[in-house]
Amino acid sequence: MRITVCRKESFNAAHRLHNKNWSDEKNKAIFGLCNNPNYHGHNYELIVKVNGEIDPDTGYVIDMKILKAIIKEEVVQRFDHKNLNLDTVEFRDLNPTAENIAIVIWKRIKAKLKEDLSLTVVLYETPKNFVEFSEACL
Amino acid sequence: MRITVCRKESFNAAHRLHNKNWSDEKNKAIFGLCNNPNYHGHNYELIVKVNGEIDPDTGYVIDMKILKAIIKEEVVQRFDHKNLNLDTVEFRDLNPTAENIAIVIWKRIKAKLKEDLSLTVVLYETPKNFVEFSEACL
Amino acid sequence: MRITVCRKESFNAAHRLHNKNWSDEKNKAIFGLCNNPNYHGHNYELIVKVNGEIDPDTGYVIDMKILKAIIKEEVVQRFDHKNLNLDTVEFRDLNPTAENIAIVIWKRIKAKLKEDLSLTVVLYETPKNFVEFSEACL
Amino acid sequence: MRITVCRKESFNAAHRLHNKNWSDEKNKAIFGLCNNPNYHGHNYELIVKVNGEIDPDTGYVIDMKILKAIIKEEVVQRFDHKNLNLDTVEFRDLNPTAENIAIVIWKRIKAKLKEDLSLTVVLYETPKNFVEFSEACL
Amino acid sequence: MRITVCRKESFNAAHRLHNKNWSDEKNKAIFGLCNNPNYHGHNYELIVKVNGEIDPDTGYVIDMKILKAIIKEEVVQRFDHKNLNLDTVEFRDLNPTAENIAIVIWKRIKAKLKEDLSLTVVLYETPKNFVEFSEACL
Amino acid sequence: MRITVCRKESFNAAHRLHNKNWSDEKNKAIFGLCNNPNYHGHNYELIVKVNGEIDPDTGYVIDMKILKAIIKEEVVQRFDHKNLNLDTVEFRDLNPTAENIAIVIWKRIKAKLKEDLSLTVVLYETPKNFVEFSEACL
Repeated sequence: MRITVCRKESFNAAHRLHNKNWSDEKNKAIFGLCNNPNYHGHNYELIVKVNGEIDPDTGYVIDMKILKAIIKEEVVQRFDHKNLNLDTVEFRDLNPTAENIAIVIWKRIKAKLKEDLSLTVVLYETPKNFVEFSEACL
Repeated sequence: MRITVCRKESFNAAHRLHNKNWSDEKNKAIFGLCNNPNYHGHNYELIVKVNGEIDPDTGYVIDMKILKAIIKEEVVQRFDHKNLNLDTVEFRDLNPTAENIAIVIWKRIKAKLKEDLSLTVVLYETPKNFVEFSEACL
Repeated sequence: MRITVCRKESFNAAHRLHNKNWSDEKNKAIFGLCNNPNYHGHNYELIVKVNGEIDPDTGYVIDMKILKAIIKEEVVQRFDHKNLNLDTVEFRDLNPTAENIAIVIWKRIKAKLKEDLSLTVVLYETPKNFVEFSEACL
Repeated sequence: MRITVCRKESFNAAHRLHNKNWSDEKNKAIFGLCNNPNYHGHNYELIVKVNGEIDPDTGYVIDMKILKAIIKEEVVQRFDHKNLNLDTVEFRDLNPTAENIAIVIWKRIKAKLKEDLSLTVVLYETPKNFVEFSEACL
Repeated sequence: MRITVCRKESFNAAHRLHNKNWSDEKNKAIFGLCNNPNYHGHNYELIVKVNGEIDPDTGYVIDMKILKAIIKEEVVQRFDHKNLNLDTVEFRDLNPTAENIAIVIWKRIKAKLKEDLSLTVVLYETPKNFVEFSEACL
Repeated sequence: MRITVCRKESFNAAHRLHNKNWSDEKNKAIFGLCNNPNYHGHNYELIVKVNGEIDPDTGYVIDMKILKAIIKEEVVQRFDHKNLNLDTVEFRDLNPTAENIAIVIWKRIKAKLKEDLSLTVVLYETPKNFVEFSEACL
């Protein structure tokens, strides 16, 4: 019997949307306020959803303590209170849109999960803007 | 690589649940308080989810400014601060249940999206009652 | 020892902002979309706060079952799924702004509480617009 | 045309995570604070999602009054203000993890729905920990 | 210049409302489901509000790291995943109503704050039931 | 009759906590992650509360359209998608803690309100950290 277990965490970061191959004018035209060269920031809310078999001994799909530790190591310690464009290797050349951040997070967490677990990541950039990425999207 | 981007908006409207082919007694028996002939109302919270390929140049599935403009034109300007039964063509003969409102909204937004984008609409009538409608439901 | 106990309830209603002494033009100019003659509506969220002494035998300021019953009788049964302008005596001649609704609710509940209890009412018209009315405002 | 209608309810309960086949030491090592022999508790938030055809006469998939009554009878009256381990037959021998509680709730509600309705249950143990169980997981 | 800084934390606990001086019948009549001898439980959400002068060097009233540490030591480590009636000295003879829990928390935190800081505690037993206790209530 | 009307808005900004009179070591020791020289950021949620007499003609303390316009001009257009330390005159020499941001916002809005209106500002830096500043704090 498979079921999905979900954990919510958060991190606060600065970022700027920018395409290095475009002129400043085009960047400003496309990304608007999000292109501010001095950055702006968000409280990112992250929901990590793991689908798998329930272990009959524990009643768990995955021990939440383990899932929390994975999220802490792969996401929070890397991105919390950071400037995504300047302080991380992932977004040095990748535009830190919510879409791209979600996929980077999905890949990092996925690499740490047992193979039979499938993963969905939901990332809120603001309470009104969010993205969802899952196994099925690949 | 496909991903889902989501936008939350809201509108406030009055409505009344009523089937014109039924007697007043039957309407009252089936719809209860929601059949009040003088209407009642809700703060409708709408989540619009768009699944598609990420544009490698922007890192976007769809520019949120465009999605917001579509929602504003197709939903908010039509339904906000309106009486759904009296002020809209859509619900003159269609009962404005959350189910029917969600499908009307889905069709309006869908018609404005590029063909390769798939759409899900979540509509909260109250924080405790909501509906979800997607491509897969057709 | 005094403390404040709070209870959250909700009701859904239609209303229209309108001043009968004004022309239609002036009403529309002042109240805008809220003046729609066919009404619009809201999910009103109500927080009732009661400050008083803790009864040493129960550890309660007021039994929540009693406070819930007062709110049900004085607010929910009167206003839920109603048109405030048409279906209630309170707003036949009083403009149903959030301010006026909160004061009407405050007076109704206040009349049912023991004299040594002081009352604050918080009324959300939408998640972004709300009012607070308390003893100290009188 | 199929659509999903959702209803949110809640119940408050005590529980303890414990495997009777394990030693006290192993239980404490695996379940940590959740193994407290004197129990702890949660405000469980439940979202019940029902997917089905819209009845053209009512505009409903299922009358919310019926769905609320099913949730009340099958979930709230059984689990609200209860000790899941001691006061319920379901968790006398089944560890009351969020996973197992969600499946028990899913089975109870599923048995009361018409056969063509498919069911998803989302259960929040805390605002940060929750599980999702649906037809597709079977 | 004084200002109020606020921190939200949470803990999950079991409890039972009971007056040892009353008969079982009276306890059941007054406290209803909350008197269940096997306990039930809640996710308590706590907001701690500290009012004081802003330190011109830091721009802080109190360093949040210090306030978090006080809340952790005085509240979370004592009450989280505990049975308030059985596992704590505070509620061995004091009925663990939200009112009484809030005052116990207020006193514990107050004792750790500098004298010129004034303290308000807001405690949510459920999203619909909460209490507020402050300096001014003494 | 006085009452308080409240409006919620938001803005997203980058910032860094830093005291120019301190060494880098002391700044890092006191402000920790918040001292990151490359900045981090937040979704600031702002609640503006205005207390005043109800105008008997409108039923309003202040027209929400006017209050929204003041917040837009004085707060959102100045701080949204900005780096508070680099892009604003207010925080060039003032540490942008939540305390200081709230007071700057309070002063800007206060200057635009009629004299008999009293003002409270609540500013959420994250859902768990927020500050409150009001007339009474002066």
